[in-house]
Amino acid sequence: MTEVLQNIPLLATERTEALLDIERHLIAGQSAIERWFRSQFQMTPAPFYASVDLRNSGFKLAPVDTNLFSAGFNNLNPEFSSLYVSAIQHYLNQYYPGLERLLLIPENHTRNLFYLENVARLRELLEMSGLDVRVGSLLLEERTAYDLPSGNVLLLEPIFREGNRLQAAGFDPQLILLNNDLSGGVPEILENLEQPISPPLAAGWRSRRKSQHFAHYRAAAHELAEVIDIDPWLIDPFFRRCQGIDFMRAEGRDCLVANVDAVLELTRERYAHYGITQRPFVIVKADAGTYGMGIMTAYSGAEFMDLNRKERTRMAKSKEGLPVSDVFIQEGVYTFEQTAEEAVAEPVVYMVGQQVLGGFYRVHTGRGRDENLNAPGAHFEPMAFGEPCILPCRKSPPDAPVNRYYAYGVIARLTLVAAAREMADWRQQQASGAAS
Amino acid sequence: MTEVLQNIPLLATERTEALLDIERHLIAGQSAIERWFRSQFQMTPAPFYASVDLRNSGFKLAPVDTNLFSAGFNNLNPEFSSLYVSAIQHYLNQYYPGLERLLLIPENHTRNLFYLENVARLRELLEMSGLDVRVGSLLLEERTAYDLPSGNVLLLEPIFREGNRLQAAGFDPQLILLNNDLSGGVPEILENLEQPISPPLAAGWRSRRKSQHFAHYRAAAHELAEVIDIDPWLIDPFFRRCQGIDFMRAEGRDCLVANVDAVLELTRERYAHYGITQRPFVIVKADAGTYGMGIMTAYSGAEFMDLNRKERTRMAKSKEGLPVSDVFIQEGVYTFEQTAEEAVAEPVVYMVGQQVLGGFYRVHTGRGRDENLNAPGAHFEPMAFGEPCILPCRKSPPDAPVNRYYAYGVIARLTLVAAAREMADWRQQQASGAAS
Repeated sequence: MTEVLQNIPLLATERTEALLDIERHLIAGQSAIERWFRSQFQMTPAPFYASVDLRNSGFKLAPVDTNLFSAGFNNLNPEFSSLYVSAIQHYLNQYYPGLERLLLIPENHTRNLFYLENVARLRELLEMSGLDVRVGSLLLEERTAYDLPSGNVLLLEPIFREGNRLQAAGFDPQLILLNNDLSGGVPEILENLEQPISPPLAAGWRSRRKSQHFAHYRAAAHELAEVIDIDPWLIDPFFRRCQGIDFMRAEGRDCLVANVDAVLELTRERYAHYGITQRPFVIVKADAGTYGMGIMTAYSGAEFMDLNRKERTRMAKSKEGLPVSDVFIQEGVYTFEQTAEEAVAEPVVYMVGQQVLGGFYRVHTGRGRDENLNAPGAHFEPMAFGEPCILPCRKSPPDAPVNRYYAYGVIARLTLVAAAREMADWRQQQASGAAS
Repeated sequence: MTEVLQNIPLLATERTEALLDIERHLIAGQSAIERWFRSQFQMTPAPFYASVDLRNSGFKLAPVDTNLFSAGFNNLNPEFSSLYVSAIQHYLNQYYPGLERLLLIPENHTRNLFYLENVARLRELLEMSGLDVRVGSLLLEERTAYDLPSGNVLLLEPIFREGNRLQAAGFDPQLILLNNDLSGGVPEILENLEQPISPPLAAGWRSRRKSQHFAHYRAAAHELAEVIDIDPWLIDPFFRRCQGIDFMRAEGRDCLVANVDAVLELTRERYAHYGITQRPFVIVKADAGTYGMGIMTAYSGAEFMDLNRKERTRMAKSKEGLPVSDVFIQEGVYTFEQTAEEAVAEPVVYMVGQQVLGGFYRVHTGRGRDENLNAPGAHFEPMAFGEPCILPCRKSPPDAPVNRYYAYGVIARLTLVAAAREMADWRQQQASGAAS
């Protein structure tokens, strides 16, 4: 069973005036915000799905990661299933009107039953939307049924090619939906297919870069900040990147030190401006990749002068052994949200197409306010939002749960605008690649 | 406050096998049903909004009226507001991507505060979807603010023309949304406007005909019945029409008698086939018009041989004095739904675009199972559905509330397919009218 939050986590800080101010501007500007999003997604269509990790420090509300191969659909509040299905149906109406047969390709880690619950839930939502769905495995050579803790059964099937069409036994899909972030690169079986693939192969972590996403996010955040008249820093974290880093050989260390210090200096200036007394920090992570490997919290550039062997090894590799050579340095945003049990919590917001579905809190009892919480394990617990983040309530105070959730939905969609612009870049690259 | 049903009304009949069978087929065929609807609305787009009166006799589930100028949005379950707003947003994305300014034109009966609550709610939902909305009155010469029982204030404004553009003071709308069924005919101020009008003027009750709607419904019901393999009669009421009727002068009486008997005979045959022991009846009403005036229940054609003066007067006029000359004779469908207090209940389902929003029960303590319940007054009480009618639940029995609501949503959308085809007819008539 999905655990649903009865109460939104507490903001354990006194410094909430700036956040209250953001929320006030978001509520007052709701109509203009919705119009702005509509025009954005008209220009650059949203991806099929996305999920965004947010951090809320009370004085700043900002995204830290945008996932285009969202897992965790099983963690959403089942009470709003109608909303999820209608979001899928609207996406199909708009972009795939004739679609009937869809092949879903999940990650390969079939031993993770939590992940398989996500796949089963996603398949169910797609089927309820009126699609004929099969789940194809990149690994299996025989059909395999997995019994899940929820009581659901998930059937994974082998896939094969007929010429340039991907197939399962007796099933010729019209669309391939990836729930696999391609950290291991693009498998040959997916290359040069006749069928469209969503998200596109370029969204995989071999080619996608966080720095490109956050450059688009910065531009979008500045545009929206103008619409609602706020300081864009309140929703946009500073960042820098370094290329050609080799942690094991300490190559590129000077770039790291200089850029960590640069981000800290910029952050310090904003903290001083707002009278924030917390200590600025940065998060250093692979510019490509995900899953909380190779992520480090730092309070000064000097920390990178003398990393010990263990730290260097940890930073040098990301998921599926993808070596880290491009490094993304992002202003750290404290999470001052905590559950009644004082565990640190971080909201994750889900979207299908341009519609927010709600989300859940990633609750971590073993980590601090300045650490990455996307680290599954014994201390990790998802708590579904009690509201779908779509509507503010003008009659409630700006920090009422419904309004805080709306703020999360707005910032999440802002990252979606950035992702939509990334997708437009990829289409253009592909078009110019095909032309050259 | 909108009263929300905790329990679905009871089906007070033993004869529910056929309904259970319909519901089983709907649940089993959900994916195919959703695909079928998607392809239908791709061919003929759904109107902006619609609401449908359904009747559920346990052995038959059928629509009896489809309203293209839906009132009663204030009676929907406020818990699903996010769903309503997302439905409006999706409609805008698909059909009016650049829309910012909308003028809503309500009915003229400003003394009906229940109706004004509907207008206020509709305006609120449109605003939350990101539109700049004004409410224009066809009657008022000065801006007038109405204080509503809910505590909301509704501002109505005078409207005027600048050439062929409809305006309110300082407001140049891009779309006119009608919540006025034009029973009194099309006012000159709305004719030949530059701006699009939704629903189109042809949807007004001066020109729209129930017989045309139900002819399209019949075709659509037969198509869907094939998809899910059921007898189409289970969801489709027989009907006939008579033209050139003058109730006061008893002109056209023979047509009435013959067609009432014909519908009863057809119904009798189906009742016999299913072993239904209830007495067949018909509902006789104006082919144009609405609002429960000029509506009669009859058990034989002979009843029309000797209508008394009062009955004739009642039948001769519909809303706003629209004279009845075309008469629609429809197979009566018993409503065997009743509340815990044994009041007769009839479901009304709401849609925006092709999305079902849910609905409410029209509960009437002063009327019988074979009577029209759309008669506002002291005995009338709306009870919001507890579910949005979008998703069935395969793990629940076919007659579980969630599944009965899903069945209502399917039949409601089937009338929407019919309405979409009516709209296509109107566009074609307009195009050929413009060409000639």
